[in-house]
This record gives sequence, C-alpha cells and structure tokens, in this order.
Amino acid sequence: MTCLPLAAPAESIDRVEPPFWWTGMAEEELQLMVHGRDIAGLEPSVTYPGVTLLGTETTGNDNYLFINLRLAPDTEPGRLEIALRDSGEARATIEYPLKARAPGSADRRGFDATDAIYLVTPDRFANGDTANDSTADTLEEADRDNPGGRHGGDIAGMRKHLDYIADMGFTQVWPNPLVENDQPAYSYHGYSATDFYRVDPRFGSNEDFREFVDAARKRGIGVIQDMVLNHIGNGHWWLRDLPAASWLNGDGTDKGEYTLTNHSRTTLVDPHASDSDRAAFVQGWFVDSMPDLNQRNPLLANYLVQNSIWWIEYAGLSGIRADTYAYSDGDFLQQWAARIHREYPDFNIVGEEWTRNPALVAHWQRGEGAQVSGGRLKSMMDFPLHYALREGLAEEDSWDSGLTTLYESLANDFLYPQPQQLVIFGGNHDTSRLFSQLNDDPALFRMAIAYLATMRGIPQFFYGDEVLMESPKERNDGIVRSDFPGGWAGDDSDAFTGKGLGGHQQQAQETVRKLFRWRRQAPVIHSGRLKHFSPRENTYVYFRYNDKDAVMVAINKGNEPYRLPQARFAEALGDSTGGVDVLTGERHALEQLEIPARDVLVLELD
Amino acid sequence: MTCLPLAAPAESIDRVEPPFWWTGMAEEELQLMVHGRDIAGLEPSVTYPGVTLLGTETTGNDNYLFINLRLAPDTEPGRLEIALRDSGEARATIEYPLKARAPGSADRRGFDATDAIYLVTPDRFANGDTANDSTADTLEEADRDNPGGRHGGDIAGMRKHLDYIADMGFTQVWPNPLVENDQPAYSYHGYSATDFYRVDPRFGSNEDFREFVDAARKRGIGVIQDMVLNHIGNGHWWLRDLPAASWLNGDGTDKGEYTLTNHSRTTLVDPHASDSDRAAFVQGWFVDSMPDLNQRNPLLANYLVQNSIWWIEYAGLSGIRADTYAYSDGDFLQQWAARIHREYPDFNIVGEEWTRNPALVAHWQRGEGAQVSGGRLKSMMDFPLHYALREGLAEEDSWDSGLTTLYESLANDFLYPQPQQLVIFGGNHDTSRLFSQLNDDPALFRMAIAYLATMRGIPQFFYGDEVLMESPKERNDGIVRSDFPGGWAGDDSDAFTGKGLGGHQQQAQETVRKLFRWRRQAPVIHSGRLKHFSPRENTYVYFRYNDKDAVMVAINKGNEPYRLPQARFAEALGDSTGGVDVLTGERHALEQLEIPARDVLVLELD
Repeated sequence: MTCLPLAAPAESIDRVEPPFWWTGMAEEELQLMVHGRDIAGLEPSVTYPGVTLLGTETTGNDNYLFINLRLAPDTEPGRLEIALRDSGEARATIEYPLKARAPGSADRRGFDATDAIYLVTPDRFANGDTANDSTADTLEEADRDNPGGRHGGDIAGMRKHLDYIADMGFTQVWPNPLVENDQPAYSYHGYSATDFYRVDPRFGSNEDFREFVDAARKRGIGVIQDMVLNHIGNGHWWLRDLPAASWLNGDGTDKGEYTLTNHSRTTLVDPHASDSDRAAFVQGWFVDSMPDLNQRNPLLANYLVQNSIWWIEYAGLSGIRADTYAYSDGDFLQQWAARIHREYPDFNIVGEEWTRNPALVAHWQRGEGAQVSGGRLKSMMDFPLHYALREGLAEEDSWDSGLTTLYESLANDFLYPQPQQLVIFGGNHDTSRLFSQLNDDPALFRMAIAYLATMRGIPQFFYGDEVLMESPKERNDGIVRSDFPGGWAGDDSDAFTGKGLGGHQQQAQETVRKLFRWRRQAPVIHSGRLKHFSPRENTYVYFRYNDKDAVMVAINKGNEPYRLPQARFAEALGDSTGGVDVLTGERHALEQLEIPARDVLVLELD
Repeated sequence: MTCLPLAAPAESIDRVEPPFWWTGMAEEELQLMVHGRDIAGLEPSVTYPGVTLLGTETTGNDNYLFINLRLAPDTEPGRLEIALRDSGEARATIEYPLKARAPGSADRRGFDATDAIYLVTPDRFANGDTANDSTADTLEEADRDNPGGRHGGDIAGMRKHLDYIADMGFTQVWPNPLVENDQPAYSYHGYSATDFYRVDPRFGSNEDFREFVDAARKRGIGVIQDMVLNHIGNGHWWLRDLPAASWLNGDGTDKGEYTLTNHSRTTLVDPHASDSDRAAFVQGWFVDSMPDLNQRNPLLANYLVQNSIWWIEYAGLSGIRADTYAYSDGDFLQQWAARIHREYPDFNIVGEEWTRNPALVAHWQRGEGAQVSGGRLKSMMDFPLHYALREGLAEEDSWDSGLTTLYESLANDFLYPQPQQLVIFGGNHDTSRLFSQLNDDPALFRMAIAYLATMRGIPQFFYGDEVLMESPKERNDGIVRSDFPGGWAGDDSDAFTGKGLGGHQQQAQETVRKLFRWRRQAPVIHSGRLKHFSPRENTYVYFRYNDKDAVMVAINKGNEPYRLPQARFAEALGDSTGGVDVLTGERHALEQLEIPARDVLVLELD
C-alpha cells in the first residue's frame, strides 16, 4: 500500500461524493460523504427550494462528515450551496450540482433475452488512444510484453470498434470494470477499485465513458457496467484515511488481522452450516490485496447504493454485472438491488455466483430470504449451463455424458423462477478460452455458437472467441485475456478487417456474425418456448417456438450423418415440411433430411 | 417365456386375488380379481352382514372377472360366500376369508431415523434350508458356481441369523424382493415378479416369511419389503393369459412392439421435455425380459395398491422400499402412497430414484404435483449423498474435491422437506462394494462407517460390507452379491462367528457393531440437529446435538494428526471440556486433542 499523507490545509474539502446528483429521483434522501482535514465538527446549512437538511453523521474520523439531505419531488435543478460553519463562523461552502434527469431515465429498459452481450476486457481489446497508456497520476505503466500488465486498451478503442460489435449482432457491451484501479501492479483487470467515482485515466475520463455509452446507444447497443461491491483494491484512497475501521471486514487495515474467505458459498443456504463458516465466507477477504467491505456499516452501504445509481444515471447504463455477488452481506444486497429497481423498475442486474450447483444459482434468482420487495436479481450468470455446455460438447457421448449432460442440465430449469433471464455463456475473462476447452475443434465450436445463439436465456460472448482465441485449459488469466488481433497498430492480423485471419478463424467469425445478426431479429428465440429431445445417436435436437414461428436446432456430434426421424419429432414439427438453414440460406425438406456428421443445423421451419 | 396352457375345466376358478382380506380397514371397498376359464359373464351375489356387492368389471378377456365389494366398518371376520351364477344357475362359489386385523395394525410405526437398516440379498446371505434350493414347481435350479445363478440362500437363513443382525446394532432388515421369480435364468435377484402374492418357494413359503417378520420383531427388528410396481418378469402368469393388452405398456406382449425406457428421469421435472420423451421414460421397458406395467389401467392400479396393503397387513411389515420409483405412472404413485398411508398413517416407504441430482430426489420427497394428500414419500434413497460419500473419501482433498465434496453436498439439504428421513448408504446391491470403492483402504472404510452411523438420516448397510466384501469398481452384480461368508455349511470363513476372518475384517466388523449398537440408543443421532464446519487441513468436523447431548465427529483424511482448534468450534463445543470416545471408551480432553492421521473420532461430549 502506498500511503500518501493528506497535504491539504485544515478544513479544506477535497472530496464530496456523489460529486453531483439529480432532481426527481424516486428516493428523496441523499447522503453526501464529505472529506477534508478536521471537518467532522462543521455545521452545514442549506437554503434551496425543496432541499431540507436532515442532519449529519460522523464516523469517529475527524476528516469525514456525512450530510443527509432530502430533495422534495418538485426540486428544480441548479447549484445547491451548502454552507459549513464552525460555531457559527463560516468556514467553507460546497457548491453542489443538482442536475436534471435525462428524459425517460427511470423507464430505461434493462438488457434481456432480446439482447446478446459482448464481454470485453478493456485493457486488451483495442488501444484507441496511445496517449493514455500510462498517465502521470497512476502508478502502473503500460507494458504489453507482460501478460499481467497493462497493455493500453481503452474506452476510445471500444468506441472505435462499436460498428464491429454491432455488425457481429451484439446489442450489449459488458466491459470489465473501468473505475480507477491505481494499484502498483496487476491493475489492468479492474476488480481492485481505488476510486468508486472515477474512470481509470488509462481507460479515459468519466466523460469519455459517458460518450461511449451514447455512441453505443446510437448503434442499438446498451452498456452493462461491471461493479464490485464486495471489495476494493488496497490502493483505494480510503485506505489512506479510513472513515472507520468498521468499513472493512477484519480490523480495518490490510496489514492487520483478517481472514481470507473460505469460498464456502454453500454456507448461505446450508441449514447445517456453522455461524463461523457463514461469517468467514462473507466477511473473509477475497485475496490479500483486496480489503473486504463491511456492508453492514450503514454509511458504507448507502455509499455503495448511491454510487451504483450515480453511474446508471450519469452514464446511461442498461445494466449492471455484479461481481462476486454472494460474497457481500445478504441484507445489503437486498437493499442495493431494491433501491436500484425502485429508481429503474425495468433495469436489469446480472449476478455472478460461480457454482456448478443450479440450486444455488436459483436461490439467488429467487431472492429467498428477501427482506425487501424487488430485491431479487432478475438475471444470474448461468454457470451450471456453462459447465454443461463445455463438458457436454467436449466429452464422449454416452447414456450419462456428453450431450446427455447438456440435455439433463437444462432440466434443472424447473428450479429457476425465470430461466429465460439467465445469462448463458461459453466463456468469460475468468475461464479458459472456449475454443481451447473444446479441444481446438472448429466443429464443436460451431455447435457451441449455435447453441448459445438459440438457447433460452441471454447469450454472452467473450471478445475474441469469435476468432478462436486460445488459452491453456488450466486457468491463466493473462493468456485468456490476450490482446484482440487488430486492436493495436501494427498487429499481424486484424479481426476487425479479417486481414491475416486463418480459414477456421474466418469461418468461426462468420458463423457468429450470421447467427447473432439473425438472432437480433428473431422473437422466437427471444421469448419462444423451448422443447428438447433426449439425445440419440450422438445427436441432440431442440426447438424454439411460439404461435407464429418455429426453429429447429440439431447438433450432431457423431461421425455419421443423422437422418432425422420425423415421427419422433412430430409433436414439435407439426405440419412443417421443411425450412431455411439460417447459416446457408438454403431450403431443406424435412423428408430424408440428414444432419451432416459433426455439424449443427439451425432451421427456420416453414 | 414359458407358456403353460391353462388346463382347468370351464368355469373352474384357479385364482382369487387378494386371496383373503381383513375387516376394519380404512378403505371400505375391495376389488377381487377372479381368474378361471370363461367366467367373465358370471353373476356374483353375496349375503354377508355388512358386505355389499357394488358390481363387476371385465377386461375383454373371458377368463377374468373383477368383483367390487364394500365392507361396512362393523363387518365381522368370517367366511364370505360369493355365489357365481350363469343366467340364474349356480356355477361356482368362492369361499373368501375375511380376517380380523392384528391389534394396533393401523398404528404401526414405520422405520425412521431411530433405525438402521441391514440390506440383504436373500439368495446370497445364508442358506437355512437346503431342501428348497431347487423346487419341483420352479424353473431355475440352484448353481452356486454361477455368479448370476441361484445359490440357495433363503428366509430360513435370514431367520437363523437375526441374532447376528440385532447384535450388529441394526433394527430393520430390507431383503431384496422375495416374491416368486419363476424365470428360466437369472432369477435370484427378485426384481422379476411372476406372482405378486407368493413368496418364491426357493426362499420359503408365505407363512415362512410371516414367521420371519414375527421373529425379527421379537428382536426389535422391523422388516421392509422390497416392492416393484414398475414391471414384472416375462414369466409372470399374467403373460400366459393377459387380462388386457392395456395392462402392459407397449402392445401387451413381450414379443411385440415396445420401446425400452430412455432412462431420462429428468423429463418428469423438465419444463422443456418433449411429451414423447416423458412417455418413453415412464412407459418404456426397463429391460427386454421385464414387461412394463401400465398403471394408468385402473384395474391394474387397484390390484397393485391392494397387493401392497395385503403384504403389510399379512406379514406385519414396517416399511416398503419402492424399486425404480420414478419409472411408474406419477398419478398412480400418488394414489398408491396415499392409500397405503391412509391405512397406516405412521408407515414409511422409501423410494429409489437413482440420480446424483438432489433437486430430483427432493422433487419426489416433496411430492410435487401431488393430486392426493399424503401421496408423497417420507423417505427417498439419498443417492446424491451416496456418491458424495464415496467420492469425498476416495478423492484427494482440495478446495473443491474430497471432503469438500462431502461438505458441500450436504448443503443441498435446503432442498429437502425432510432431510432426516432420507435413507443414507454407502452401497447397495446395485453398486460396487463400498470397501472396493474406497480403494480397499480400511481407514477410509472406518470413516465411512462412522459417517453413516452419525449423519442425519436413516443409515442403510449392505450385507457383508461389515467384513469388507469386495467387488470390481465397475458394476458386476454377481460379484457384488457374493455369498456372505458363513452362510453356507462348509464355508472357509464365517462372519457370524468370526472364524477365519482377517484382521482388517474383524476390525471393520467390530467398528460397525460398536457404532451401530451405540447409535441404537443415541437420540442425539436420531433426532439431534447437525452443525458442520468446512473442511480444513484434510479434516472434516461436525456435531450432532440437542438440548441434552452433543456428539463430535472428526474425520481426518490427512497424513498428519489434526490438533483440534477449540476456538474455531466454540459455537458447537459450548462449555464442554472433553468427552468419551465411542469406539474406545476412553475419555479425551478437548485441550490439545489430536485426531490421529487417517482416522476418525466419534466423541460423546460431556
């Protein structure tokens, strides 16, 4: 940890967070965290129509003052002056902006099954502005030769390639966290926040991010912000002047007494779990360099809630991806989600709960034990299906492996209140690369893509998978998150233009493009029902259908063509006699239809 | 299939089933299935106080007549005469016994967590009567050299060794099915019934079975009957003169059109399953030689319900183990269980649903979709925990394997309405032998036994596991169900007396005996709460406790002694300073307590 002494003079105010707010929010109360030397004893006062001072709170640290305000519904935007006095004597004034909300802000639609998400690791996707690869006010400098170092990718790079993302058929972008991670090393990934209100300058500015979201929206793309509620980086500015020891789990420092989390996520549902294990899971630290936030502290909890709402409103987000969701305090999570949904009833949040156990994922989607109505998450990452997809395709088929794994896994949808809201994915920044996991087999990869493009849920794709980026099968973050070809000037190959790509890469990219562009305008995939048939002869057949349309997907993993037995699928085929192959545009008659060996057919039935 | 022509003269009656009944049952209606040449057109009449003829039903087969009776509550036991007339002319009379119920019959207690079950394959446990090894009226003869043949074990053998079973601490015996299996070959296992109302003569007579249950009861042992509702053997007498084609799934013969089950048990919960797969699971045949019963036929359904109740009442059962439970028609299963529980409200049934998926097992315990109150099963076989136990002990320990597998599996208890009613087991007649699965490691075996003796649920033990009987790890039924040493005259070793057992065998047997005898009188195990701690340092520690008692179980799989950190377990240890080792009787102080390497400690805390 780097400890910088606060050099400001007494009573100077160096932080007010949130830095501004909006009138007309559903929640009328607003709590400002003010930081400055010896300010805890100051007495604020406001004279602004509609704004009431409710009081102040302090933490025991003389450098923090929390000011509680109420903004009446009819409060007009403007500049709120908060005068701070010491025994009646004016000592400082906060000029606090109250902004007007964008029209329709509260009514924004969150991402859902009409969408497909493109996950980007911003440092590794495209370097749009080489001038910010390293900056004067951040510690770690760019080093593209270091797999764990910063490579220079940024918001400008993502913005530059929005047309590519849209052209591939995606309608949402989820970048890994963009907030400041001013850690001395291994800071590129974004999960070690050092400032909750600032985009890391090596990615760009807050305004760059807001403009990126605007530019994406113009192309029909929403932006999902990756948020970490559970922990911070040990370079966070709080660590230099902690509001209170109780803001962190453990003793409030990264040098003292704390335990690492036991990762025993089952403790939260386990009727037999010990209190100590349950506490250790939630209150333990994720890793040594990530102090664990104690959201049972109401000031901190409120800080985090307001911060999330601030980003939604400021940047114009269409969703949040909540990192290490289960590791935070459960009551806090309920409050957090409920307050966000109160401001944005049609918003969406997807929680990460990394487990193979669908009952655990379902527990979070159900929001069991919810104290607050609306507190549950609509979406969760579908890790159980993620594993089933990879293993089901890579494994040999048998009565209890391979495609049967995939088929049987989906049956667990009976546990979920809303399976169609789960985010399905073949890989992400924490897993090995999908193509590698599928034994570098382009045919299996094609099946995986067709599955993700047609299965119930919200598909999420990891940048570069479309051009078969590879990695070891064992976890290796630096390689998994390699630079996207063409994102840097002088790259040997360029996936944006196709230059230098191999044949399999081109075919894979084209498969993704065709399927996801098609999916974008296929309501039968967005909201149609699903009927699947138990795999036989190495072939798995399922249908998406509604009152108007039907699509048949047939995955043949075998080394022989599969002659489709119409009789077996009669209940799904209905009167159809054939359909159009989404990938080739050719029409196939169902009679004597064969699925070629090791291939997948996506057929729009007529 | 052997087809014997029915040699009886016209209108002779060769079967009335049930062969007798009881007065004072909760269900007043009784349906008799009468079989005889050309009897379907006969008109029955009864004149017996309290008995009303409700009518008759026929099946289209002239040789079957179903007579529906109502027995009023105050009907006295006696001999009911049913006169059968043809156009007014007397043709036959059925003398039908109405018996008095045994006192307290309806109030019998089914097996529960106060019990421990000993599963026996009757043909392979002990040969108590060599005179019935082969009989004149059955096809397959004894051949002890054939692993898939009949070896001569019988009811007399089980009865002879009831003292052994009681001495080992068990309080329930579950024999594999004893009803007639008159198949030409591979008939010893009992799952191919050829007569639902007759004990196979190579096991003994119906009366032998009833007396065995009596003898067991005198030793504090209940008997659980293994029942197969899903299928019959193709040598069943029905197959020679089927009541109606609709009694079987498929076309009503074992030679015609039928499909094998797809074993896709997930179809029953899967919201996306196809109708055809769902039907194929339930209506497909288990194997070629086992015609699949169509319980949607109401006459057959009623036949099966009455048969189960008949055995409970006749033999004095304390429970039923329902084979291949999910493969039967779901509505029928609800009716079957509800009607049994109506007669015996405190009875218990354990269903076999062979799956690793706890959500599926929980589905059956919840009785979801139950149309009939009381239709759910209290107990299910805990296959998920079975796998977790074997793998958790045999695997190397890591953050997500070994003891962690076992620990995390138990968390799924949150899915079950009554986890304490699940039957837990290390092995059964269909699995490889527990000792073999634990790598022939006596230390791991000892841990498994201690776990089964102290974990929540109803432990079930497979005969011979206590003397480390072995098998291949792959399924090999004939070897898994080898003869119990000492069950046959002249056996080299004798597990009943200990003669010829190796040291590890003796120790294993003594461990089982000590733990299960102790368990028999340990309410804290029967009904105490459970608290477990996530494994650390290769050691898994859990507690069973109630307001009065507490037991600590510590399983150390590591190669180093484990010094118990009292502070970590303070919430469970309370004020205790030590306890008595159940296996050695020694007292250990908690302070500086060490669990030896590769050992398990069961400590009654003081």
